[in-house]
Amino acid sequence: MSGRIHVVGIGPGSLEHMTAAARQAILRADVVVGYRPYIELLGELTEGTRVESSGMREEVARARTAIREARAGHTVAVVSTGDAGLYGMAGLVLELLGEQPDVDVTVVPGVTAAFAAAAVLGAPLVHDTALISLSDLLTPLPAIERRVRAAAEAGFVIALYNPRSATRTEPLERALAILREVLPAATPVGVVRDALRDGTSARVTTLAELDADGIDMRTTLLIGNAETRVIAGRIVTPRGYSP
Amino acid sequence: MSGRIHVVGIGPGSLEHMTAAARQAILRADVVVGYRPYIELLGELTEGTRVESSGMREEVARARTAIREARAGHTVAVVSTGDAGLYGMAGLVLELLGEQPDVDVTVVPGVTAAFAAAAVLGAPLVHDTALISLSDLLTPLPAIERRVRAAAEAGFVIALYNPRSATRTEPLERALAILREVLPAATPVGVVRDALRDGTSARVTTLAELDADGIDMRTTLLIGNAETRVIAGRIVTPRGYSP
Repeated sequence: MSGRIHVVGIGPGSLEHMTAAARQAILRADVVVGYRPYIELLGELTEGTRVESSGMREEVARARTAIREARAGHTVAVVSTGDAGLYGMAGLVLELLGEQPDVDVTVVPGVTAAFAAAAVLGAPLVHDTALISLSDLLTPLPAIERRVRAAAEAGFVIALYNPRSATRTEPLERALAILREVLPAATPVGVVRDALRDGTSARVTTLAELDADGIDMRTTLLIGNAETRVIAGRIVTPRGYSP
Repeated sequence: MSGRIHVVGIGPGSLEHMTAAARQAILRADVVVGYRPYIELLGELTEGTRVESSGMREEVARARTAIREARAGHTVAVVSTGDAGLYGMAGLVLELLGEQPDVDVTVVPGVTAAFAAAAVLGAPLVHDTALISLSDLLTPLPAIERRVRAAAEAGFVIALYNPRSATRTEPLERALAILREVLPAATPVGVVRDALRDGTSARVTTLAELDADGIDMRTTLLIGNAETRVIAGRIVTPRGYSP
């Protein structure tokens, strides 16, 4: 008899911002599968549980491992940081199981990085928001550029995921050039690293003054819309109430 | 001495999908402030705690109540469903406190409806996503239409919040007309009511066949992008891996 798979969003990476359902899915699993640094964030939660961890760009192998373990009758938790769907593992597991799935899959959502970063900064994402990954490993750069431009022109607040790695610096340069073309120089920008995880750091700046130095894959950038402002050091996008 | 305010996103509305931090903020509060139906979702969590609940469109009054209670020295939890920021109360509280805040405010993020609905449907939000509210109470309808069009044209998966009330049916009609103009008729659409809350219901349909009947303010609509497909009854947007 087949086991089952929970694809679990663990949230920003501290146990306190994980949901009860995510915690239970990990505690009850026979096997926890995930990217090594994410497994480390789970700390005591995986004590006494078998862990199958692996490295970067091994997403397909991890999904296959999870399916193999479930077919062997085990209850498996596949963990992603943030949400289990957005840039996470849920889609891949369902794709691999295909049209005749022989394993039950439950997706357990989590708090994605944009909302963790927003909470640190104040309330920048109060209104319509676009979530965009700047990683061009799986998405052509022109598609990313088109989305950044469309979101800025239409007045979305924008959250940029995976903004910059040691070798991949061009997408952020291009995105900032587009944003600076479309939006006012004074548009508030929040830069949050390790949002709601050990060692959280955040700064509030403007589109004109934003410096790419220090922005890496653990950073989330939040770009305001035309109404966004800074109140007592925190970024706030008014919803439109008349307070 | 002033108390403090936690603006808390309780997630989709069941205790299991609430974060530990949200739960703690509610349990430790002297006063819990919120929209009446949201307070009811908290069940036992508010037992023995003073509750200040109120009705629709009383957001400003609720934020003022929270600030008054905090100034009186109390620890206050202001609750929103989903996230505390997105279409939530965090911005309003910070706006009202202004440039010289005399009360500490902590924002506690939660799982927003789009991700709860996505988990129910499969993995529709794997890739870049636009979150759009169709409520035109606070946003002019042309701005909403512009965002729907921009998001569809740029290839975002789209989550529509607050799609339709008993009296407010035009924004959904307009949004669907735009989506049907821009996207293929076969684009997968997920319709989820009370996502991950008691009585969750979901259906998977297409843009051509979507019927507005039964869509209300407790419904979230997820509209796929050009790559989104239905696999074994679940909506999946491939990230782009080659499995």
